[in-house]
Amino acid sequence: MKTSRMRVEMYYWPTIQGRGEFVRLLLEEAGAEYVDVARAKGGMAAMMRFLEGDEPGALPFAPPFVKVGDTVVSQTANILAYLAPKLGLVPDDEALRAEASQIQLTIADFVAEIHDTHHPIAGSLYYEDQKKEAKRRAQEFVKERNPKYLRWLEDVLARNATSEGRWLVGRNLTYVDLSAFQVVEGLRYAFPSAMARIERKIPRLVALRDRVAERPRIAAYLKSERRLPFNQEGIFRRYPELDATAPRRGSRGGRKAKR
Amino acid sequence: MKTSRMRVEMYYWPTIQGRGEFVRLLLEEAGAEYVDVARAKGGMAAMMRFLEGDEPGALPFAPPFVKVGDTVVSQTANILAYLAPKLGLVPDDEALRAEASQIQLTIADFVAEIHDTHHPIAGSLYYEDQKKEAKRRAQEFVKERNPKYLRWLEDVLARNATSEGRWLVGRNLTYVDLSAFQVVEGLRYAFPSAMARIERKIPRLVALRDRVAERPRIAAYLKSERRLPFNQEGIFRRYPELDATAPRRGSRGGRKAKR
Repeated sequence: MKTSRMRVEMYYWPTIQGRGEFVRLLLEEAGAEYVDVARAKGGMAAMMRFLEGDEPGALPFAPPFVKVGDTVVSQTANILAYLAPKLGLVPDDEALRAEASQIQLTIADFVAEIHDTHHPIAGSLYYEDQKKEAKRRAQEFVKERNPKYLRWLEDVLARNATSEGRWLVGRNLTYVDLSAFQVVEGLRYAFPSAMARIERKIPRLVALRDRVAERPRIAAYLKSERRLPFNQEGIFRRYPELDATAPRRGSRGGRKAKR
Repeated sequence: MKTSRMRVEMYYWPTIQGRGEFVRLLLEEAGAEYVDVARAKGGMAAMMRFLEGDEPGALPFAPPFVKVGDTVVSQTANILAYLAPKLGLVPDDEALRAEASQIQLTIADFVAEIHDTHHPIAGSLYYEDQKKEAKRRAQEFVKERNPKYLRWLEDVLARNATSEGRWLVGRNLTYVDLSAFQVVEGLRYAFPSAMARIERKIPRLVALRDRVAERPRIAAYLKSERRLPFNQEGIFRRYPELDATAPRRGSRGGRKAKR
């Protein structure tokens, strides 16, 4: 399937970046022909038909999903792994593709933990109804998990001699670099003081973020109306109380990294 | 690469089923030649060398990971998608492979939510230090998320006319059926009363579970010492207070399914 012939219908909630943004960044960097369906007239109803099982093809559990020809593909990392080879944004080599996928899935875990800082009890409840638990979870996130994930991304860059530490996988930009950019952007929005403290320890990742932001198509996209602003409905939310430095507590914890 | 020639080194925490069990089930059903490295002498040290970056190849964020030849592959869903084609446990068709992957990734999200019922604040803290939050999260899980995921799996089966609702993807058993089996087993262990209430609503999924349990290699595996018992260190834990029926509360919640 040639890029120039492939038309992608992309479905995601129309008012947030959310998980859909990882797909939008891929499509924008590739210059792909795509429609962000739910943002057009009648699009939400069209999206709901898929979620309610009224359309043929694989049943999505949740947005984002894409339709390419007759094929419906859901789950962010799976969408990216499906589209990237057709758009030239991942190498052909099987081992490098598996490596790209493992990085993307680790970013997906990271994103889920970022989301749960403001929704540690349930996505179906308001933030205000789980604020106390959110504060506790966010403290652990800022202290332990955020540095752990960011340093892992830094280490992956440092190990990639093929690109002299410029890109996460292989010699050139891939879809996982776009996703890493988005995570840094989102964290800067949601946790500005935590990020201000940690960024000097992750220079390669910060340079990667800049390199992606300067790509001509990404730069144009970020300035366009297609790029939704961060807001208090998405994954990355700015609640200053969650970004605050936690007082050091006496702790019994610290064991167990098994999951 | 032929099955008979391929030797898989599998790395996971040696005392729990955890996420590693999805990989073990695949290897067992396939009759693959594999070593569960961390359960052998010196194996934990060998595993830690990968996690600390002292081995070549892609850097795993966490176990499970596998080594096949010189290739290191991590992230459960990615490991399965990498091994299954070599072991005949997923169809060749690109759209069916994408569908298998999206189901596996949805199961991975389900598993993460199951884990977080007992660790809603942090994996690094003891259950006892987040018991109150766990009870609240588990109530939402039992009421909303568990039925939603299980009914989605039931719907996916109902829609798969190719196998007359016997398997999740395509005509025959694939790796995602093994994973669905494991989730039902784990939920029966961790949430026996919630499962007792819901199982009559998911007859196809229960029949799938039985069908997998009766596969000769799986049946032999489940009886062997290679199958670790469920315990209070893994993803699926039996805390009766988390399985209790929640009193209906007046609630402001219920909005927002976006993630």
